[in-house]
Amino acid sequence: MNSLGFLHQAPTRRESERKRHSTTVESQTTSASTVENRVHHKRANLFHVIISLDRAVVPRVPSLALHHYSISNSNEIHPFSILPLSLSFLVLHCLCVFFFFGTFFMALSKISTSHTPSQTLKPNFYSKPCVPLQCYDARRSGVSFEQHRKLRISCSVAPNQVQAPVAPAVPSDTTSNRDCYGVFCTTYDLKADEKTKSWKSLIKIAVSGAAGMISNHLLFKLASGEVFGPDQPIALQLLGSERSLQALEGVAMELEDSLYPLLREVSIGINPYEVFQDCEWALLIGAKPRGPGMERAGLLDINGQIFAEQGKALNAVASRNVKVIVVGNPCNTNALICLKNAPNIPAKNFHALTRLDENRAKCQLALKAGVFYDKVSNMTIWGNHSTTQVPDFLNAKINGIPVKEVIKDTKWLETEFTERVQKRGGVLIQKWGRSSAASTAVSIVDAIRSLVTPTPEGDWFSTGVYTNGNPYGIAEDIVFSMPCRSKGDGDYELAKDVIIDDFLRERIKKSEAELLAEKRCVAHLTGEGNAFCDLPEDTMLPGEQ
Amino acid sequence: MNSLGFLHQAPTRRESERKRHSTTVESQTTSASTVENRVHHKRANLFHVIISLDRAVVPRVPSLALHHYSISNSNEIHPFSILPLSLSFLVLHCLCVFFFFGTFFMALSKISTSHTPSQTLKPNFYSKPCVPLQCYDARRSGVSFEQHRKLRISCSVAPNQVQAPVAPAVPSDTTSNRDCYGVFCTTYDLKADEKTKSWKSLIKIAVSGAAGMISNHLLFKLASGEVFGPDQPIALQLLGSERSLQALEGVAMELEDSLYPLLREVSIGINPYEVFQDCEWALLIGAKPRGPGMERAGLLDINGQIFAEQGKALNAVASRNVKVIVVGNPCNTNALICLKNAPNIPAKNFHALTRLDENRAKCQLALKAGVFYDKVSNMTIWGNHSTTQVPDFLNAKINGIPVKEVIKDTKWLETEFTERVQKRGGVLIQKWGRSSAASTAVSIVDAIRSLVTPTPEGDWFSTGVYTNGNPYGIAEDIVFSMPCRSKGDGDYELAKDVIIDDFLRERIKKSEAELLAEKRCVAHLTGEGNAFCDLPEDTMLPGEQ
Repeated sequence: MNSLGFLHQAPTRRESERKRHSTTVESQTTSASTVENRVHHKRANLFHVIISLDRAVVPRVPSLALHHYSISNSNEIHPFSILPLSLSFLVLHCLCVFFFFGTFFMALSKISTSHTPSQTLKPNFYSKPCVPLQCYDARRSGVSFEQHRKLRISCSVAPNQVQAPVAPAVPSDTTSNRDCYGVFCTTYDLKADEKTKSWKSLIKIAVSGAAGMISNHLLFKLASGEVFGPDQPIALQLLGSERSLQALEGVAMELEDSLYPLLREVSIGINPYEVFQDCEWALLIGAKPRGPGMERAGLLDINGQIFAEQGKALNAVASRNVKVIVVGNPCNTNALICLKNAPNIPAKNFHALTRLDENRAKCQLALKAGVFYDKVSNMTIWGNHSTTQVPDFLNAKINGIPVKEVIKDTKWLETEFTERVQKRGGVLIQKWGRSSAASTAVSIVDAIRSLVTPTPEGDWFSTGVYTNGNPYGIAEDIVFSMPCRSKGDGDYELAKDVIIDDFLRERIKKSEAELLAEKRCVAHLTGEGNAFCDLPEDTMLPGEQ
Repeated sequence: MNSLGFLHQAPTRRESERKRHSTTVESQTTSASTVENRVHHKRANLFHVIISLDRAVVPRVPSLALHHYSISNSNEIHPFSILPLSLSFLVLHCLCVFFFFGTFFMALSKISTSHTPSQTLKPNFYSKPCVPLQCYDARRSGVSFEQHRKLRISCSVAPNQVQAPVAPAVPSDTTSNRDCYGVFCTTYDLKADEKTKSWKSLIKIAVSGAAGMISNHLLFKLASGEVFGPDQPIALQLLGSERSLQALEGVAMELEDSLYPLLREVSIGINPYEVFQDCEWALLIGAKPRGPGMERAGLLDINGQIFAEQGKALNAVASRNVKVIVVGNPCNTNALICLKNAPNIPAKNFHALTRLDENRAKCQLALKAGVFYDKVSNMTIWGNHSTTQVPDFLNAKINGIPVKEVIKDTKWLETEFTERVQKRGGVLIQKWGRSSAASTAVSIVDAIRSLVTPTPEGDWFSTGVYTNGNPYGIAEDIVFSMPCRSKGDGDYELAKDVIIDDFLRERIKKSEAELLAEKRCVAHLTGEGNAFCDLPEDTMLPGEQ
């Protein structure tokens, strides 16, 4: 708890600093934060600019930001009377700085997802005592969103309340529904349909971070039938943040325009207790990106709070057999926090996405062996979705033959192979200029399909799951990526016939140690006492920072 | 021809201006353009920043850019002795302005596609006498791209050569192949496969603008089997520009990582004569966005040249029965230019995409009628993909009943309906902050599927096709969106049982007149003599400018 103290104090200190500055500024003219409180949805651009300026920029370049405020105040404080010309230049340039500064971060924020590099802290971290997804109870009533939107902010976890209670606290007004969108508010006549077509019964899929780039690929895949099949109607329940709600409407509009016959319902909202109602799948993509200068412990805490809250919401309102796939990073520990906060949902139902790593590992082995990627099987990613992850070349096969018998270059396997898998995201950002949203979405599709279709004989897939009862000797009570098989019923069992040699075990142990350390670091969020953070090194994957 | 003259002179003037600026800068210190010449692929980020600053921003805000460079030297030049504090503030803030200005435009350029609004002109327009896609003959040899990349620029149309010859001129060195990418260079053992699975034979799909956002959605849909079915292996032949080649590698990497079993080959290149080799589908998405201050005539000419070149390339190297879908705007006239330059390919095989308009129109009718969108059929978009387009509510049906009998609000149908369809793209950009890449990709999928699956009894779909022999009285020899039906063989026939009343005919005539005017405007590109441009108004769709 002590080592975490700075996490909760730093914002407070900065917040008070910011407030001090902004109070002075406000006294002079219409300040950024005042404007911010006034803006409505029709002034979205301004809204974004102000938000970026006031909240996101300050923590990133405190000296510059601080500068801004003091300069804004300089009219009163500093005696510039003898330098009128230079002062007017100065003020003019300050305005330019902040205008373009804000616009730049607005532009960046549009392309940012949880996998985007070099992102700023999202709003609310420093300026409000809770993170956005914890601030719930905003609700749209009816289609006319702009007119009726009323946001009431209430936070479930006060900033200094480090030991959040694990027992799920259901807000008093969760009975109201999230809002259907546009054409999806029309009641689809399922019964009339059943007479002519043999649809399966509708399933409800909740997606968080729904306005981000990964979701922008994923939602259309879900709606097209690519994931659950051409006879499976679906409802999409999209969770955004207060800030992304406009964009979320845009996403819903594009889904309308796509006329997917299987997509029967779309609803959007910012309250997980509403959005997760009765969902059978929860794809938790939204997470805070790591801000500049933020320690990994800080990221664990800030995202942990989001996933603690979402775990409680799932526990309160989701289907009792909901399957949860956590994509937002650090995804293993986020999944652990989530499942700990959802005691009424089987822990086995929670997954951390390591499928993209598995796919990348298969591709690299295929490249090295000079075969097509469909010849690679039994690929396991062990451990954490971080640089301690272990792409397992010992058990993997090419054309049914152990990889080590096909690729004789042991040195490459032991060093370069793992590095290639880990650095793939970073290389992609260099090439493509943005993070790998499309292939991440594909890997989420793969992860779901692996659970709803029977695993081919002799093969397996990787997913980060709860370790209790595992046969590999991995510490219990963490979420660890392991080889799994499924009968196609949404459930899985751990793979048998897995060999572990000393080299592999040593690397697995390292990842295990890291996850145990991460767990100690979020003990206040899993209801296991005081947090103690001793993370030795930065193990964030390149391209995901 | 005279009216088009400015197009070729303006760039030259600006270019010389730009050069003058940069010469001054270069003499002082390490200039942007010098750096630019030095940067290599491994310094991709810097590269992008410099490009944005030097090419995109300079023509837009030359004074600011110049400012920046002189400030870099200001420590040496200006005497700061009497106002050290205020001036140092000033300099610091100026630096901030320019740093973030450049970065902001870099960020904007990353999210730009052919459908993105408010874009800057792409590089090469001012700095080279030809547009990138006309500059061909760059070729990668082998996988190691950085080492072997050699670009030889040669232009088929000199800037002052307005009357391009229509007879296709095949470059002398088109025998070489485009480059396969990564794992896709491994030879897929089709024969071994055929023994166990009943795949259809591989089809080759060429996509231009392959590094853009629409393609980023579309390529993964093509690879997943969503478009051509789960038993149809495909090869993707991706056309980019010199500038987007790095990004194109990133796209290919993501396709690798997606492990799509149906995706057997991926090749990338910037020479349409190589990339279009033997393709059976050509999805022409890449086009220049409309630059600031550019007339619609200018856009027609600059994009017309691209599509003239691509038409010649298709004529020379594509399958004799290639189906071409033109998405890049102005798509109807681009399709006309393309087909005129490909005399050996049936004109009937060329399409201009109006399917997104059709989808949007169906959705708006469903919303108004309070039904699910799958109840709307027989929706036609007549005419040009511009604001003169005619969403046809006379022939459209809801639950098999004419729309006018279901929606009694004739005034809404006659005015607001069309406006809603047209403005949808603009509204989406307001909400979502970027153009509708996802739903555009979906509509391309729909357009292809409408041609490869039999049209349901009594229904039809819209696509912009060649008007020769049409039964609706529309002028011949243009590309006009009309109602079509298909037997699922890739071909189509125009729909019968279409009613046209006076109100509808009048609006169709307006769109027809516009397309005839556009045709006169590009006569130099279709081999029909001198161009004469008399476009009366700006009919670009909101959200596509």
